[in-house]
Amino acid sequence: MSAPKAEKKSPRIQPRAPRGFADRDPGDIAATARMMETIRTVYERYGFEAVETPFVEYTDALGKFLPDQDRPNEGVFSFQDDDEQWLSLRYDLTAPLARHVAENFDKLPKPYRSYRAGWVFRNEKPGPGRFRQFMQFDADTVGASSVAADAEVCMMAADTMEALGIKRGDYVIKVNNRKILDGVMEAIGLGGEENAGRRLTVLRAIDKLDRLGVDGVKQLLGPGRKDESGDFTKGAALEPWQTEIVLDFEIEYGENSFTGITPGWNKEPIQSGLELKREGSFDLLEIQGLVRAAGYGPDRIRIDPSVVRGLEYYTGPVFECELTFEVKDEDGKPVRFGSVGGGGRYDGLVSRFRSEPVPATGFSIGVSRLVSALKAIGSPIVTGANVAGPVVVLVMDKDRVGDYQKMVAELRGANIRAEMYLGDSGMKAQMKYADRRNSPCVIIQGSNEKQAGEVQIKDLIEGAKQADAYRSNAEYRAARLAQFSCKEDEIVARVRELLTAHGIA
Amino acid sequence: MSAPKAEKKSPRIQPRAPRGFADRDPGDIAATARMMETIRTVYERYGFEAVETPFVEYTDALGKFLPDQDRPNEGVFSFQDDDEQWLSLRYDLTAPLARHVAENFDKLPKPYRSYRAGWVFRNEKPGPGRFRQFMQFDADTVGASSVAADAEVCMMAADTMEALGIKRGDYVIKVNNRKILDGVMEAIGLGGEENAGRRLTVLRAIDKLDRLGVDGVKQLLGPGRKDESGDFTKGAALEPWQTEIVLDFEIEYGENSFTGITPGWNKEPIQSGLELKREGSFDLLEIQGLVRAAGYGPDRIRIDPSVVRGLEYYTGPVFECELTFEVKDEDGKPVRFGSVGGGGRYDGLVSRFRSEPVPATGFSIGVSRLVSALKAIGSPIVTGANVAGPVVVLVMDKDRVGDYQKMVAELRGANIRAEMYLGDSGMKAQMKYADRRNSPCVIIQGSNEKQAGEVQIKDLIEGAKQADAYRSNAEYRAARLAQFSCKEDEIVARVRELLTAHGIA
Repeated sequence: MSAPKAEKKSPRIQPRAPRGFADRDPGDIAATARMMETIRTVYERYGFEAVETPFVEYTDALGKFLPDQDRPNEGVFSFQDDDEQWLSLRYDLTAPLARHVAENFDKLPKPYRSYRAGWVFRNEKPGPGRFRQFMQFDADTVGASSVAADAEVCMMAADTMEALGIKRGDYVIKVNNRKILDGVMEAIGLGGEENAGRRLTVLRAIDKLDRLGVDGVKQLLGPGRKDESGDFTKGAALEPWQTEIVLDFEIEYGENSFTGITPGWNKEPIQSGLELKREGSFDLLEIQGLVRAAGYGPDRIRIDPSVVRGLEYYTGPVFECELTFEVKDEDGKPVRFGSVGGGGRYDGLVSRFRSEPVPATGFSIGVSRLVSALKAIGSPIVTGANVAGPVVVLVMDKDRVGDYQKMVAELRGANIRAEMYLGDSGMKAQMKYADRRNSPCVIIQGSNEKQAGEVQIKDLIEGAKQADAYRSNAEYRAARLAQFSCKEDEIVARVRELLTAHGIA
Repeated sequence: MSAPKAEKKSPRIQPRAPRGFADRDPGDIAATARMMETIRTVYERYGFEAVETPFVEYTDALGKFLPDQDRPNEGVFSFQDDDEQWLSLRYDLTAPLARHVAENFDKLPKPYRSYRAGWVFRNEKPGPGRFRQFMQFDADTVGASSVAADAEVCMMAADTMEALGIKRGDYVIKVNNRKILDGVMEAIGLGGEENAGRRLTVLRAIDKLDRLGVDGVKQLLGPGRKDESGDFTKGAALEPWQTEIVLDFEIEYGENSFTGITPGWNKEPIQSGLELKREGSFDLLEIQGLVRAAGYGPDRIRIDPSVVRGLEYYTGPVFECELTFEVKDEDGKPVRFGSVGGGGRYDGLVSRFRSEPVPATGFSIGVSRLVSALKAIGSPIVTGANVAGPVVVLVMDKDRVGDYQKMVAELRGANIRAEMYLGDSGMKAQMKYADRRNSPCVIIQGSNEKQAGEVQIKDLIEGAKQADAYRSNAEYRAARLAQFSCKEDEIVARVRELLTAHGIA
């Protein structure tokens, strides 16, 4: 007879999830599902409808818009199909949506509002809390060039935060416009396709103004910066006069309340970026007007020049949803919770596939970041009561598993979570198993009970309470606490009584 | 000024999902979600708990257990990590679960019951209805060697079908045992590791007995078979005497009701597989006894020798959930709906990672197959009423989008699905858009209404009914059917009345 496969001798394999990939436990799965259901409700109320795309796309259809797009083969997991075409795992949900809309353009209503939640993949160096697979929840409006679409997305993001129980004042949707930043780039001579990579380095440097301050950003705009750990980040290599214009603009724009035209700008001799910048400013004023008209004050949605967004495909307004309440960092220092999502206008992404321009805008939530935030504020959406485990029917006599199976089937038939113990261990281990499963009670039928047509029901919740009063385990067991017998045909009724008494059923 | 990205001139990319990958529409997403919620409820009632693993695993941790495992680099999408280790997209949910359990062995209760739904990937030739990404819904019990665990999984599968509205008699859980088949393989000299590939070819040939009949399977067991289209499938190249034993066994076992020992077996001179086969038969008898004790008759769960299952990792009982009602095939001929799921015992999969044996068994549902089945029987779980679209506020005057935005915000604030038209088109196109969105009504405010502090509400549902009575569109429009005016501050109340009247709110 051949050896069963379980005993096959082969070198043992190390069981481990790949670096940057993680398993999810029941609590995390349930919390995330409840949170996403709340988000879904808000998005539906705004008239958005669900649509989903596959995890794999043709590499050329996705395009490369990640921050590290200038290093080929990085950022994205790619592999070749048997017909030599390159495939990639999606790195966000926006690029695949653009492909979907372009492919089904004539069938879709325009403007087309849609939403989707899904896992995305980044081929990056993993680290603590930095995963290579994570979930996003996106909403997009395609086919609307009006900034009313951008304003709507910002209001929807604000409503979502409040629906999730994040108090007004604890979040803010910050809005900026890439056109303004692009205007500044023009002004310092960094316009044009050939400077795309360097523009992104400058934008990413500006993005760090909050964290590194003016001096740190000045280094990143210039030769580069060495951080406290000694790691060196290459800079954008701007000339001092270019750095000065960028910082001048950022600081003045930031310190003054937004008025449409940044004070101080006109003193600059370089005017080439002015038109684009002015256009961007007007867009922002219009968004501001629309959200104010709908009753969203600056405590909820406001213009903020520090918002950049790392992806290269944005062409107009960009948004960031920041949680402003404080949490403790690893060193116990209080820090702002920070960003849980963002987005912006990407008018070029769909038109890559079409001869006509197709405007689009959208917003993306980082799902696990937002779950963490809801945990931090103790939101009932993600905490949830600890769910009681199943009733466990113990196996006292292995020849009678049919009898035990019948009891379990009756309990399940009455909609009561129940299971028969399926292992090989004795009474003590079975009780331990029931404890570990958080069972409300166990059903016991040894040969004596069988002869009497009865079972013992042991109430583990009540038992745990009474156990505290006993000095030793032995004394406790001897007392046979919280245990009662009943007839075989009363099991369902008595178990239901017990569950009701504990507020479970 | 730099050209906006939308106008960038670059070669146009063809928008297409990769071969074998598909997008999902709102109806499919909603139907699948409702179906999975029902399955989840049954699994929870059986005491199973949710756990999920990532999409990517180390290739060596997954192992190669697919039907085409003898052709390397096929069946699985794989790519190399930056540290040279090979990664693969999971091809099922069982191999990753085995890794998860092995990695967290000491933390988990044993036996460990868990469930998960998730997408899996197969690098196979795509075809009509044959996808390279599809969803499975799995439940597994790890750490129980008793066939009571197998019996439980079969009963849970039966309960799931009934919870989904599939009538008793329209489904059957068929159970076989790989040990019996392995015994037959022993008997014809195909035991041992070196014959694993050929055994699988034989098993896959047996699997086709229903479809191809004895003669077809005889060809597949021997030199091979050419089908009607002229395609040739290589055979298992058995000698005639081997083929005879296999077919003898299958046919006699199949035609007789199961009695534990197959009639006719003893007449064979080759006895080496007998012990394994007998062991397998006793396992099946025990499963039969357990499910009958729990009240599951042969109309729901029965022994069937034709069940094989294509995956190589099964070591004991194997199950198949077959839907027996008829549907029409492409040619309009009635055919049985067929399999929507299956599973079995895989005692070797977890122990690949550990020095001790770890028994396990599980069941996997093909989610989109099951959705199709529920559609075929018209189950309300997947059909669902056509959901009404959002209320659309028309944009009559582009300078007053702020006013329209305010109306929309009020409607949404009252939990009414609503949106402002975001496109650039005129009144007629906006009405067409509202129709396409399945809107119950539109809100109209031109300059006259604005001056009077009023809006027009047009009831599109009532309007559509009345429209049938008119001969021409022009006549219909002139009648201004199902349209009424109200004060600006009454919008929410009047819209809610309208929705309630149509049974929507």
